[in-house]
Amino acid sequence: MIYITRREVFNAAHRVYNKEWSDEKNFKVYGKCANPSWHGHNYTLFVTIKGNIRSDIGYVADLKAVSTLIRDRIIEKVDHKNINLEVDFMSSRIPSTENIAIAIWEELEAPIRKLGAELHCVKLEETENNFVEYYGA
Amino acid sequence: MIYITRREVFNAAHRVYNKEWSDEKNFKVYGKCANPSWHGHNYTLFVTIKGNIRSDIGYVADLKAVSTLIRDRIIEKVDHKNINLEVDFMSSRIPSTENIAIAIWEELEAPIRKLGAELHCVKLEETENNFVEYYGA
Amino acid sequence: MIYITRREVFNAAHRVYNKEWSDEKNFKVYGKCANPSWHGHNYTLFVTIKGNIRSDIGYVADLKAVSTLIRDRIIEKVDHKNINLEVDFMSSRIPSTENIAIAIWEELEAPIRKLGAELHCVKLEETENNFVEYYGA
Amino acid sequence: MIYITRREVFNAAHRVYNKEWSDEKNFKVYGKCANPSWHGHNYTLFVTIKGNIRSDIGYVADLKAVSTLIRDRIIEKVDHKNINLEVDFMSSRIPSTENIAIAIWEELEAPIRKLGAELHCVKLEETENNFVEYYGA
Amino acid sequence: MIYITRREVFNAAHRVYNKEWSDEKNFKVYGKCANPSWHGHNYTLFVTIKGNIRSDIGYVADLKAVSTLIRDRIIEKVDHKNINLEVDFMSSRIPSTENIAIAIWEELEAPIRKLGAELHCVKLEETENNFVEYYGA
Amino acid sequence: MIYITRREVFNAAHRVYNKEWSDEKNFKVYGKCANPSWHGHNYTLFVTIKGNIRSDIGYVADLKAVSTLIRDRIIEKVDHKNINLEVDFMSSRIPSTENIAIAIWEELEAPIRKLGAELHCVKLEETENNFVEYYGA
Repeated sequence: MIYITRREVFNAAHRVYNKEWSDEKNFKVYGKCANPSWHGHNYTLFVTIKGNIRSDIGYVADLKAVSTLIRDRIIEKVDHKNINLEVDFMSSRIPSTENIAIAIWEELEAPIRKLGAELHCVKLEETENNFVEYYGA
Repeated sequence: MIYITRREVFNAAHRVYNKEWSDEKNFKVYGKCANPSWHGHNYTLFVTIKGNIRSDIGYVADLKAVSTLIRDRIIEKVDHKNINLEVDFMSSRIPSTENIAIAIWEELEAPIRKLGAELHCVKLEETENNFVEYYGA
Repeated sequence: MIYITRREVFNAAHRVYNKEWSDEKNFKVYGKCANPSWHGHNYTLFVTIKGNIRSDIGYVADLKAVSTLIRDRIIEKVDHKNINLEVDFMSSRIPSTENIAIAIWEELEAPIRKLGAELHCVKLEETENNFVEYYGA
Repeated sequence: MIYITRREVFNAAHRVYNKEWSDEKNFKVYGKCANPSWHGHNYTLFVTIKGNIRSDIGYVADLKAVSTLIRDRIIEKVDHKNINLEVDFMSSRIPSTENIAIAIWEELEAPIRKLGAELHCVKLEETENNFVEYYGA
Repeated sequence: MIYITRREVFNAAHRVYNKEWSDEKNFKVYGKCANPSWHGHNYTLFVTIKGNIRSDIGYVADLKAVSTLIRDRIIEKVDHKNINLEVDFMSSRIPSTENIAIAIWEELEAPIRKLGAELHCVKLEETENNFVEYYGA
Repeated sequence: MIYITRREVFNAAHRVYNKEWSDEKNFKVYGKCANPSWHGHNYTLFVTIKGNIRSDIGYVADLKAVSTLIRDRIIEKVDHKNINLEVDFMSSRIPSTENIAIAIWEELEAPIRKLGAELHCVKLEETENNFVEYYGA
């Protein structure tokens, strides 16, 4: 068993808030992250897959196919987008880093299995000081 | 003469577009950066001042005062904000990295002179692959 | 279960040595790290907590509270300090990176539990080439 | 139990290909990585060992000895070398990042045990966008 | 006048040696960099252009066009290649970092002028510890 | 004319204060940097030399010789040392980053000229947020 990680970056706007709360409560809970006029980040995404090395090719899976998958399923949908308004897989979620990471896991888990590997971890960095890691439910 | 640089970071949303153009023309010129629903970045700002070292203190200027100045004049206004909608010194400008850097220069030049130093360069990184440097007009 | 990490930095002086040994033996074991006139580092601290996401807020815990906790309990005590002489939680320990990481764990474990999360890992980088990770006893 | 990591770098050339395949098939599977005229990388190697802290010295193991070991067994053999042609422990392997990481593990596991610690992980970064981690068979 | 920099990366093999010298002399001058079996690097290239901002678009030049130019003229030719054997613009040069940077300058200077900007600097990093900067003859 | 930069790191303790002032005044001017029990940093030093490329070797100067020079004249003297107490070339100076950079320039300028190159810049990073650059008097 070996673990392979692919890094991708995307730039997006978001607002962290709970639609069912007043602006006042949102500011109290989320501070400046609740700004109704949005703010944004350069997100850095690390997708880790695991599996056994196929002895004929020396790879667990075709990393180019993994990279294409991540780009098609995730990066194309979130890069230079508004996460609250434009990203289908985030439509009913509060776009905290935690929730974005979990949603990315859910988008990638099944298609990565089809490539012959297993999704191990989704790591998402929002700033140089904060990141989350999700290993599945 | 010696050069001292202070790094600060801020997270903001923006849309790069010319208000006088159609959406079509904006997309043609700016591509996905013209997304009307906004996108965002972790901006990294490097402010470089220059001057002669004051022999009694070993500094050109009180770097803490410089840092406070940058925070008050720039970071407080742009961090977790929408650069198009909420930043006074950007209100009439297309928020390209170039224009943000020039506006930051204009905000900082005079007050840094009051601290006994001279503004030398404003460097602004929008992504790990792109940055601009402005040394004044 | 999801893992959230907060990065903090601090700058400190220390000397790695065993008080019960001669200078000669200390130099033999610790090399230049045993310099009696001290040396220092920019330490980078990564504190990882884990827990379940609270569905109403989309967070495991209030990261601002976690950050404040780390600052109050750790950073305020070690930043711009001498780890051997001035840090209460290190007073009876050899200040190797390993021992500092363990002491930070012991300072943070209980108060993080009071914030509704669980401490998962303390990672401490002493230089770009060396770091330690501690996951509890 | 605590985990200590040492970072080392090396610069090497390689070609990813299966000797038993045609050039055509190699290009189909490995793309430009199969270039017969070679290409190369700045590899970053992270070796993580684990163990209990020896209370007299505050270390799991003498990190200088670990570093010397990594340099003697690995870096001296791969730095400024051609991995396909000149590295004994890679002679019968396809030099994918995965296979290099596993071979490094095999070279280091026993000698690290002799230093009183246990090898926990070999992490190898080939580019800023790709890395592998191996924790043993 | 403002300065805009675009970062690109490429991975290549090379051998630093003078064809007219003996292997002995090459090893004496270049050390392990003269290894006849090649070695390689992840090169990081920073291309800086300068010009005046066009007020209608807020850019000096279309950075996408600059990026495409760098990719077509440089990256496509050097990435996953052997700099000594396969790169036309390096065919008669010793592939030191200095000479590669100068050659890249010569490839880019005229076409960047056609995009309405001026080439200011080519910076090339060979390792994290070494880089060169060239500002033209 | 081309510019070549070599990066080196060192870890040192220091106290920023003016010997002729009271502790009170030192704390007022330098804040926590005046801590009498010292603090420390991982300093990153960038030494840039300039010159014309020697066509026979493709280098401005033997970078290995430059590196050895920097190590002998600077790193050996400051690494794992107390800058106030143990570094000869800092003995009569307040160890601000500015003054350390200038002192390093003075130590390196003449010997680099003997290697056939010219010292262009000494850049010294004290933390990730602060650095100075000195280009000579």
